Amino acid sequence: MGEEISNKQVILKNYVETSLKESDMSLRTSKIQLKIPSGCDGAVLVKNLYLSCDPFIINRMKKREVYIASYTPDSLITGYGVSKVLDSSHPNFKTGELVWGFTSWEEYSLIKDPNIFLTGWQEHSIIKDPKLLLKVQDKDLPLSYYTGILGMPGMTAYVGFFEFCSPKKGETVYVSAASGAVGQLVGQFAKTAGCYVVGSAGSKEKVDILKNKFGFDEAFNYKEERDYNAALKRHFPDGIDIYFENVGGKMLEAALSNMRLHGRVAVCGMISQYSLEQPEGVHNLLNLLTKRIRMEGYIVSDHYHLYPKFLEMVVPLIKEEKITYVEDIAEGIESAPGALVGLYSGRNVGKQVVVVARE
Amino acid sequence: MGEEISNKQVILKNYVETSLKESDMSLRTSKIQLKIPSGCDGAVLVKNLYLSCDPFIINRMKKREVYIASYTPDSLITGYGVSKVLDSSHPNFKTGELVWGFTSWEEYSLIKDPNIFLTGWQEHSIIKDPKLLLKVQDKDLPLSYYTGILGMPGMTAYVGFFEFCSPKKGETVYVSAASGAVGQLVGQFAKTAGCYVVGSAGSKEKVDILKNKFGFDEAFNYKEERDYNAALKRHFPDGIDIYFENVGGKMLEAALSNMRLHGRVAVCGMISQYSLEQPEGVHNLLNLLTKRIRMEGYIVSDHYHLYPKFLEMVVPLIKEEKITYVEDIAEGIESAPGALVGLYSGRNVGKQVVVVARE
Repeated sequence: MGEEISNKQVILKNYVETSLKESDMSLRTSKIQLKIPSGCDGAVLVKNLYLSCDPFIINRMKKREVYIASYTPDSLITGYGVSKVLDSSHPNFKTGELVWGFTSWEEYSLIKDPNIFLTGWQEHSIIKDPKLLLKVQDKDLPLSYYTGILGMPGMTAYVGFFEFCSPKKGETVYVSAASGAVGQLVGQFAKTAGCYVVGSAGSKEKVDILKNKFGFDEAFNYKEERDYNAALKRHFPDGIDIYFENVGGKMLEAALSNMRLHGRVAVCGMISQYSLEQPEGVHNLLNLLTKRIRMEGYIVSDHYHLYPKFLEMVVPLIKEEKITYVEDIAEGIESAPGALVGLYSGRNVGKQVVVVARE
Repeated sequence: MGEEISNKQVILKNYVETSLKESDMSLRTSKIQLKIPSGCDGAVLVKNLYLSCDPFIINRMKKREVYIASYTPDSLITGYGVSKVLDSSHPNFKTGELVWGFTSWEEYSLIKDPNIFLTGWQEHSIIKDPKLLLKVQDKDLPLSYYTGILGMPGMTAYVGFFEFCSPKKGETVYVSAASGAVGQLVGQFAKTAGCYVVGSAGSKEKVDILKNKFGFDEAFNYKEERDYNAALKRHFPDGIDIYFENVGGKMLEAALSNMRLHGRVAVCGMISQYSLEQPEGVHNLLNLLTKRIRMEGYIVSDHYHLYPKFLEMVVPLIKEEKITYVEDIAEGIESAPGALVGLYSGRNVGKQVVVVARE
């Protein structure tokens, strides 16, 4: 029997109604033994170091499922994270190794037991089926990057832009929700591919960061635009070749009106639509035909076979400082509910991470 | 100087308002010399044998452009056809050769002078720039087939289904407007690919033909369905892998709701939307994301480099009677206005062709 220690956890108290409040979550202290229980073959016990605040977590807190199974009230919040193996009964993992987690989409949508393979929002987790954990490859870079640029958001940007948008040098790229963890990387990948990139975001501060820090050619605050169509016409007088779609609804409609012949739309998210009882209608899909547009939805977890190829591209870009990556790090698991609320209200600047413990 | 003979023509009299009437067109008899005029290098003079009645012709008769430049009133109607070369000042064409026409899309949308390269709805035409004419390859098959199964509609079905839908054996395929010149071929191509195919059409007679003549596994009359979503659920209890989209609006919305993971939608047409001042909104595009659907519009004229590959596949299928092709042939250029009106009202059974002269 290992030592039994206390284990702080973040729990969903109530389903989120309209907007997320800190009081929808609570902290709880349970206990955990620092050893894999007997009869639990193939599991790993991990100490969680970094937790990732991602928009999908907020979706899972709602009673009405958006496209991932919702959490149940009074249960642990789960998500991506970086962890250190403390004990293992799985042949592929050894004590002391650093790992980060992802899930396949099919399994994702069926998650009943959050301890199966996602990092729980707790100090220590027993991961019963670690087959989808990846090992941290490059220890020269900050470990927290595996929640972002080297993890799921990085892969999401890479796969969506390079695999689904087929960019060519000189093409024009529009990224909505561009200051998010994925959007800021898409814009920078587009610049490395020789494209002209415009992003939209929801505050003057974010627009400044897009232009001055992330190197977008132009950016605009969509909240200050009454007519998205006119805003896009102003920024793309000759039209858009690639639209990296994070928003949906009226923004998608405006983008379609401004697409060029043979344009491509990678559908990564439709954040404006998730909370609507009746999603907005898009009335101009005839553009798909007249402009021969390809529009395709994707989920990053279908594409993890590309992870080594992605690392090969992105690690040198980071080390040579050709790409800028900004994190907003909250200290301690107690800060996790506040950090998540900040993500919802757009308070964070850069990828929102919670540090539970440093290695 | 060649012999001057009379040349009957079909003229657009007025822009079509709501529905096409025969009186929107008129017959006119002009004169033509049976010789290429001097100073007209690179042209061909043809005798038109078969004219093709296609839905895009009706679109071009409206003042509001759908996606091809409209005709101007008091000008000749133009479209696809099969013709015989009577005189040529172009090095690639010889007197006596049989040709059929297509146009590149970019040029299509810019057509000002209908004599440039489309077959005019007249007995004889001078085609000033025949570079896009194709020669009839296989004379064992009826010449009229080059307006249909061996021409633009056949290529449209082939390219859309095989290039854009990536069919796999055992997949489920839904074809809307399935009794049209393109839809009936898509269904049959899908059967040759080992798919399960359901089509929808607008009358009991058409539904019977889909099932009993074209070999669709099932078919339904959309006019008898109050709820397209329920109709598709009944026919595809396990969902749709491939939707061949000819209709748009509510039908597209119902199809998206019934698509399976990794489904594909080839957008060939959106006929329900062309005449609407405000097209219908599609509210469930979030399905693109959650089911990773690819939806892509295409125009056949981008893909004529595949024509030889297409012939290689389709000619044996026709000769071995593995594919059924039905034509509705109207006799004489005088019958062209009535034949076109019949296409609009759904009166024709099979591909509507007008025979102007037999070879």
